[in-house]
Amino acid sequence: MAPVPNGTIPSAPVTGRLSSVYSEVQKKRVDHALPLPSVLKRPFTIIDGPPSSAAGNPDEIAKLFPHLFGQPSAALAPSDPRVAQTHRKLKIGVVLSGGQAPGGHNVISGIFDYLQERAQGSTLYGFRGGPAGIMKCKYVELTSEYIYPYRNQGGFDMICSGRDKIETPEQFKQAEETAKKLDLDGLVVIGGDDSNTNACLLAENFRSKNLKTRVIGCPKTIDGDLKCKEVPTSFGFDTACKIYSEMIGNVMIDARSTGKYYHFVRLMGRAASHITLECALQTHPNITIIGEEVAAKKLTLKNVTDYIVDVVCKRAENNYNYGVILIPEGLIDFIPEVQHLIAELNEILAHDTVDESGLWKKKLSDQSLKLFEFLPQAIQEQLMLERDPHGNVQVAKIETEKMLIQMVETELEKRREEGKYKGDFRGQSHFFGYEGRCGLPTNFDATYCYALGYGAGALLHSGKTGLISSVGNLCAPVEEWTVGGTALTALMDVERRHGKFKPVIKKAMVELEGAPFKKFASLRDEWALKNCYVSPGPIQFSGPGSDATNHTLILELESQA
Amino acid sequence: MAPVPNGTIPSAPVTGRLSSVYSEVQKKRVDHALPLPSVLKRPFTIIDGPPSSAAGNPDEIAKLFPHLFGQPSAALAPSDPRVAQTHRKLKIGVVLSGGQAPGGHNVISGIFDYLQERAQGSTLYGFRGGPAGIMKCKYVELTSEYIYPYRNQGGFDMICSGRDKIETPEQFKQAEETAKKLDLDGLVVIGGDDSNTNACLLAENFRSKNLKTRVIGCPKTIDGDLKCKEVPTSFGFDTACKIYSEMIGNVMIDARSTGKYYHFVRLMGRAASHITLECALQTHPNITIIGEEVAAKKLTLKNVTDYIVDVVCKRAENNYNYGVILIPEGLIDFIPEVQHLIAELNEILAHDTVDESGLWKKKLSDQSLKLFEFLPQAIQEQLMLERDPHGNVQVAKIETEKMLIQMVETELEKRREEGKYKGDFRGQSHFFGYEGRCGLPTNFDATYCYALGYGAGALLHSGKTGLISSVGNLCAPVEEWTVGGTALTALMDVERRHGKFKPVIKKAMVELEGAPFKKFASLRDEWALKNCYVSPGPIQFSGPGSDATNHTLILELESQA
Repeated sequence: MAPVPNGTIPSAPVTGRLSSVYSEVQKKRVDHALPLPSVLKRPFTIIDGPPSSAAGNPDEIAKLFPHLFGQPSAALAPSDPRVAQTHRKLKIGVVLSGGQAPGGHNVISGIFDYLQERAQGSTLYGFRGGPAGIMKCKYVELTSEYIYPYRNQGGFDMICSGRDKIETPEQFKQAEETAKKLDLDGLVVIGGDDSNTNACLLAENFRSKNLKTRVIGCPKTIDGDLKCKEVPTSFGFDTACKIYSEMIGNVMIDARSTGKYYHFVRLMGRAASHITLECALQTHPNITIIGEEVAAKKLTLKNVTDYIVDVVCKRAENNYNYGVILIPEGLIDFIPEVQHLIAELNEILAHDTVDESGLWKKKLSDQSLKLFEFLPQAIQEQLMLERDPHGNVQVAKIETEKMLIQMVETELEKRREEGKYKGDFRGQSHFFGYEGRCGLPTNFDATYCYALGYGAGALLHSGKTGLISSVGNLCAPVEEWTVGGTALTALMDVERRHGKFKPVIKKAMVELEGAPFKKFASLRDEWALKNCYVSPGPIQFSGPGSDATNHTLILELESQA
Repeated sequence: MAPVPNGTIPSAPVTGRLSSVYSEVQKKRVDHALPLPSVLKRPFTIIDGPPSSAAGNPDEIAKLFPHLFGQPSAALAPSDPRVAQTHRKLKIGVVLSGGQAPGGHNVISGIFDYLQERAQGSTLYGFRGGPAGIMKCKYVELTSEYIYPYRNQGGFDMICSGRDKIETPEQFKQAEETAKKLDLDGLVVIGGDDSNTNACLLAENFRSKNLKTRVIGCPKTIDGDLKCKEVPTSFGFDTACKIYSEMIGNVMIDARSTGKYYHFVRLMGRAASHITLECALQTHPNITIIGEEVAAKKLTLKNVTDYIVDVVCKRAENNYNYGVILIPEGLIDFIPEVQHLIAELNEILAHDTVDESGLWKKKLSDQSLKLFEFLPQAIQEQLMLERDPHGNVQVAKIETEKMLIQMVETELEKRREEGKYKGDFRGQSHFFGYEGRCGLPTNFDATYCYALGYGAGALLHSGKTGLISSVGNLCAPVEEWTVGGTALTALMDVERRHGKFKPVIKKAMVELEGAPFKKFASLRDEWALKNCYVSPGPIQFSGPGSDATNHTLILELESQA
């Protein structure tokens, strides 16, 4: 068991949270003891798997990672307790990279506790503010006291995060200097697909320079799009989806009680629609739009609008003038015609003056003009007026849920005139995003992260590098979870950028042939017309349901079994 | 103890929720047994208090309620068990009126269980869809099976609610006919200030017509603005504030972790700012705007903006370019100059054509013109374009949080040019409203509502009418809670409308001399510059903190003690 100090929050006015006021629930969580997989509770040995390849273009990956390509994945296995374990002290750095996800603090406390228990006298440095902290050698030494108030707490504020990347030769040089200065044996990079790619580049670079610093990644993102067979889920997804589902469930009961609103709920998750799909499986909304399906079927915005309007009309016939509709944040990125329009607009806005009379519109292709005219006026204006510093249209700023409400209203009016709709439609828009990134981690995320961190410590202690900490068998009791590391190069493919091959870990998108989508697809027609709402309620830390994981993970693991 | 059937949700495909899929937490809650105040567990007697008066203008109230005015409040007290209790059967109706609040279902189950246990053979009718259900005699007979799946669940969907009022002589006649047709001994009206006023008018009317139907009110509103000494809080306030505070706490940790956003959180509560104040006390935001203070100090929108900008600038000096700001939904209703502008705009929009050249603006008073020009363009357009069916400006639709972000941006740019601000400002807007109205009730709301309903049953059984169910001593253990009824006329004052006196229960506003505001005011400067964020976390139904009530209630009760 981890040496979690008992007692209340120290009251000393130190940095970080030590001086914070804690709620009853925070206090309870800070002292919550976490179970470890059995293999981490006893002496272990590392079993290497067969040589690995790449997710795509192995030849190019081999060229990009000459020192790391092909290395086996590693699995921890119980060892003969009579065999002496390595007890050398380590100096380890840890960094949080990118957006917040519940559980990040537990990865760090997992690493720390590993070092305390298995490599006494070790030092853990926390780089501040993300990868910039590595480059600028901005760090804090993490002690038992420093870490304590963050145990099982949400947020990344223990050392904060950042979105910088270590990319240029000069930046790699800075990282090397920091590694040398702190005499680092290892570095744990907690991040998403980009950050883990970066971790692997660092590992390759350190090895090529004969530095002793090993690098291990950890899979973090609420979006749930960093996963593969060996890494069944990214941490934070479970908590974020449960927080959003609590709110969705509440809104559903409200919709049913009032009987007069359609709630359009946009959910965070720009690239993939995993969050939206998981929330649908948890709550059974009337309509759910999955970006990957929209893209695969090459749907237009009009198609999506019509789909919603069809359901609204059918429900009106049953006297249901209310409902709940889930929309992924990245929806319009999935619609090919919108991409074309945006590209054309960016071109026009960059080179032409936009006259008020609208002559500029003649430069749009027919298809784009038609789409532009189909958009509500407010959205048209937003597209024309709000640009990012590069002068580009800010697609991310478009409130898709409000846009859809307006388009649905317009279409319903048309149908009303045609005598095909007699209902009442009132839309309410919601965006659930920031609320879910820093909640108190669920029991699952808290335990999963702790094992990821503890396992990362074990991998570094064993001299491994270029692996992503991998904890598996997650549907079994925690004791039976597997622990190891997967070669980061095995997750990689290349993309051609500026005439060069760049290594990437491709985002795991919602698979239309995958078990979670198929389950959803088999039920959505029933959900559309009946009201099968489920209200998951607030996340509980004890009692029934408190140890459950999410539908996506369970369905995926079951289908692999 | 209430006869809550054990076991799982019946699977029979009946109306209501009986066929619903329940989450683990919902299932756990449905079987959660509720404690009752001691006085409700044993034979009781009713002790009448002294004659009552009115909150204001007692002479007018006496004229409006000739049969009810002056009647005493009633307190339940333990009676000699040897004295025979009344066991006559009753026919009772119950109605939910107005917006949802967590706990409404428990009021109904409280009434039901009272009848089951103390007046066997009684009948409980639920009027569907609010007061309209009374007028149209649209009802359902509530049975043990029907009620069971709604126990401790959020929402009003057991019988749904509505916003109709029983006002005209014809409507009172309809209510009488329903009362006669169903042979009602009593009616429980669960609602806010307006609905309880209506309940009292109904009670007066039934009595004046010599109908046997008694009427008892129950204090419902998440806004927390229906309360007085005898009715220390309205139900739903506790749960809603805790749901919002969970989200605010999460956003705070996010703000601190990212370090780059100011989150402007608008909170439901149009008339009074109790919710905003309570959430501030729970979470310690950097800035909290309380509408009642803005009104009392006659602040302008510019004053409010400057206050926010001052704090943002001071925080930037400490390198904090982030923060959390709470804004009550009804903020702009509290600002006198905005009220003037709206009134002038309504006048102009009703009688004049609005020319594009802006000549119409000359009709605005100087002060209103200045304010109009101060508003961000998007808000100007919203004021001019979006009107309600009566042609009036839709103040409720203004997204105050977005408006403030824009005004703060503009002012900060000015200060930057003057060299007084060097920070970075990025605003993120949130509106927390519908998410909080139908959540699973907290232990407090669940228990409080059950006692309110059980007590309402007792009052009706004792032949009482024109009272509002009153449960007190709420900071003590449940066993020691007091139960009784307060004369609704005692809560009333009159307002002059269309040349007539109308009875009203005045909304309880945030009192600037009250304990909750004073505590907030004594701490807000510290919260502004330091980061004293508290993250309450998700509502727990067991374990530490699960039985706590809210700060507002505790502070108010303590200050009365």
